[in-house]
Amino acid sequence: MSDATLEVALGDRSYPIHIGASLIGRAALYAPHVRGRRAAVVTNTTVAPLYAEALEAALGAAGATCQRIVLPDGEARKDWQTLNLIFDALLQAQADRRTVLVALGGGVVGDMAGFAAATYQRGIAHLQVPTTLLAQVDSSVGGKTAINHPLGKNMIGAFYQPQLVVCDLATLQTLPPRELSAGLAEVIKYGPIHDMAFFDWIEANIDALVAREPAALAYAVKRSCEIKALVVGQDERETGLRAILNFGHTFGHAIESGLGYGEWLHGEAVGCGMVMAARLSQRLGGVDAAFVERLTRLIERAGLPIVGPALGADRYLELMRVDKKSEAGEIRFVVIDRPGSALVRSAPDALVREVLAQSCAAQ
Amino acid sequence: MSDATLEVALGDRSYPIHIGASLIGRAALYAPHVRGRRAAVVTNTTVAPLYAEALEAALGAAGATCQRIVLPDGEARKDWQTLNLIFDALLQAQADRRTVLVALGGGVVGDMAGFAAATYQRGIAHLQVPTTLLAQVDSSVGGKTAINHPLGKNMIGAFYQPQLVVCDLATLQTLPPRELSAGLAEVIKYGPIHDMAFFDWIEANIDALVAREPAALAYAVKRSCEIKALVVGQDERETGLRAILNFGHTFGHAIESGLGYGEWLHGEAVGCGMVMAARLSQRLGGVDAAFVERLTRLIERAGLPIVGPALGADRYLELMRVDKKSEAGEIRFVVIDRPGSALVRSAPDALVREVLAQSCAAQ
Repeated sequence: MSDATLEVALGDRSYPIHIGASLIGRAALYAPHVRGRRAAVVTNTTVAPLYAEALEAALGAAGATCQRIVLPDGEARKDWQTLNLIFDALLQAQADRRTVLVALGGGVVGDMAGFAAATYQRGIAHLQVPTTLLAQVDSSVGGKTAINHPLGKNMIGAFYQPQLVVCDLATLQTLPPRELSAGLAEVIKYGPIHDMAFFDWIEANIDALVAREPAALAYAVKRSCEIKALVVGQDERETGLRAILNFGHTFGHAIESGLGYGEWLHGEAVGCGMVMAARLSQRLGGVDAAFVERLTRLIERAGLPIVGPALGADRYLELMRVDKKSEAGEIRFVVIDRPGSALVRSAPDALVREVLAQSCAAQ
Repeated sequence: MSDATLEVALGDRSYPIHIGASLIGRAALYAPHVRGRRAAVVTNTTVAPLYAEALEAALGAAGATCQRIVLPDGEARKDWQTLNLIFDALLQAQADRRTVLVALGGGVVGDMAGFAAATYQRGIAHLQVPTTLLAQVDSSVGGKTAINHPLGKNMIGAFYQPQLVVCDLATLQTLPPRELSAGLAEVIKYGPIHDMAFFDWIEANIDALVAREPAALAYAVKRSCEIKALVVGQDERETGLRAILNFGHTFGHAIESGLGYGEWLHGEAVGCGMVMAARLSQRLGGVDAAFVERLTRLIERAGLPIVGPALGADRYLELMRVDKKSEAGEIRFVVIDRPGSALVRSAPDALVREVLAQSCAAQ
């Protein structure tokens, strides 16, 4: 596949997503956004040695003065303390309101840099340069930014769109295998909720994706971003439709915060959470056993866990009750009402407990 | 004066400001915003014993379920730690996205509750019930929310409009005298930057204002809110005009962070800062010595300090360089270009040093 450019259509906050091989170093992509400005590259200790120099060279060639802010790696550090490292660095450097934050890394870096941009001096511009599959197909697009709270994942944040997303497919070749699998969870997600033809394609190409064949990865990123951009363009602030993108996430977030952030990767928890959500969908009559089996098998082939940790059903329910979709203490789930279509609804606790009993390791 | 209702005109984010005596307990004002919802009253240890019960009774009568969140008092606590107390309380109570935050207190409470509303679960509704003169005439209107950072005042925040502002004039009768004077600084501000007829009126009525005559306070609050609403309606996100509302604030913020937040009240620092900004305006040719003298005398009669603390000119300049209006390390001041009109511009360091030498206590 040659390079592709998509657009997230949000009126005067619309922005492009560029997808292609070796885009990080392409100065022309950044120039309209950073020329004559200060750019602060927010990255982490893992990604910085791999890509920060190339990005800074491109930003410099595009006319920016660069500052680098290196955060500790991992979901366990997506908190106030780490966010404050960004503010401290910006203020020490006397970064003004025209400064552009550039997120270089995976979902954690992107979420934190985006939230820092949303709140530094009440809002500055930011660009997303995602270097993980998960960030390229999901978290870098759509303007959801957040940090975690000990009592709930992504509980503190803002809707704040970037001005540009640059998906350099070459970065996927350096991903640890667990990170690649975690990203595949979010790719697979788009099938059941929106596009069963894409699901068929993923099924046919899962081995090529796990083997990182460039053409397969390129198509997966492009099609995922197309669906994400479509949904976000229709419901930026998640008043309705956008919630379907959280398929598997209600169970998944409970796994993440129940085990302690970072124990499982976000995508791993979402993969396992989709198995649970599919089983719940089956009990609610939306899909049949064959569909659940097919989805479970695909998640497993992507290298993802399909058995949940033994937190106990009571703890799962307690954790899911603080989910952002909850209303008046009632948990609301994204369920598949027919293959390729999802909706948000509550479910009887008894059914949820059946699903957990079926899906979790023995305590 | 009978009750007045103004509007902040911001399209689908427009909202009313109700001004009158004893409005806190009027359930009908709140009902459209809280009926059938959870309301979290965010207040502080000083204000809670005075007004929290009356407000909660009204919210209850309006159909809300109430939760109270009591913060420590003072600008020194307008920080991450205190903000997190709000998030902790909301999450412990499993407050969902339909929860409405109600800020009951002065500028510090309003800024923090507003920022918490902007970021809790990526944004929930909030109402402002300001109980200080400063909050009624300035900070509760216009959607500026923020917390302080050790390196700069209001550096972390968001533009996030409330759905309602309720200014109960009766609360001004319980204000400590220093707080009343601090509020008068922001009232006086509106004269030089926008409305010299209002300035004349303040001059003629300053003794009545200091004596808290209800009719005088009512007019001062109403006219101040009118001007604030007009400016915010034209430039919500401070891309231009709105910056004139920061007259006296560049010097003032330096005083506040230089002395340590809370040593001087915000309004006290702004009062003294306006004397400095007026002297700078004179040196830049915008106003004459008689105008500066007139403004200085009015600020003094309002019970505000007119001599700055002896931080040293170098420290003042260093502190002002991290002001949000700065660009590329150049400090930008709000100056009066003719009585009743202001603009934002830079000024030679030498002139600023002259002003500081003239305006500060001997070191």
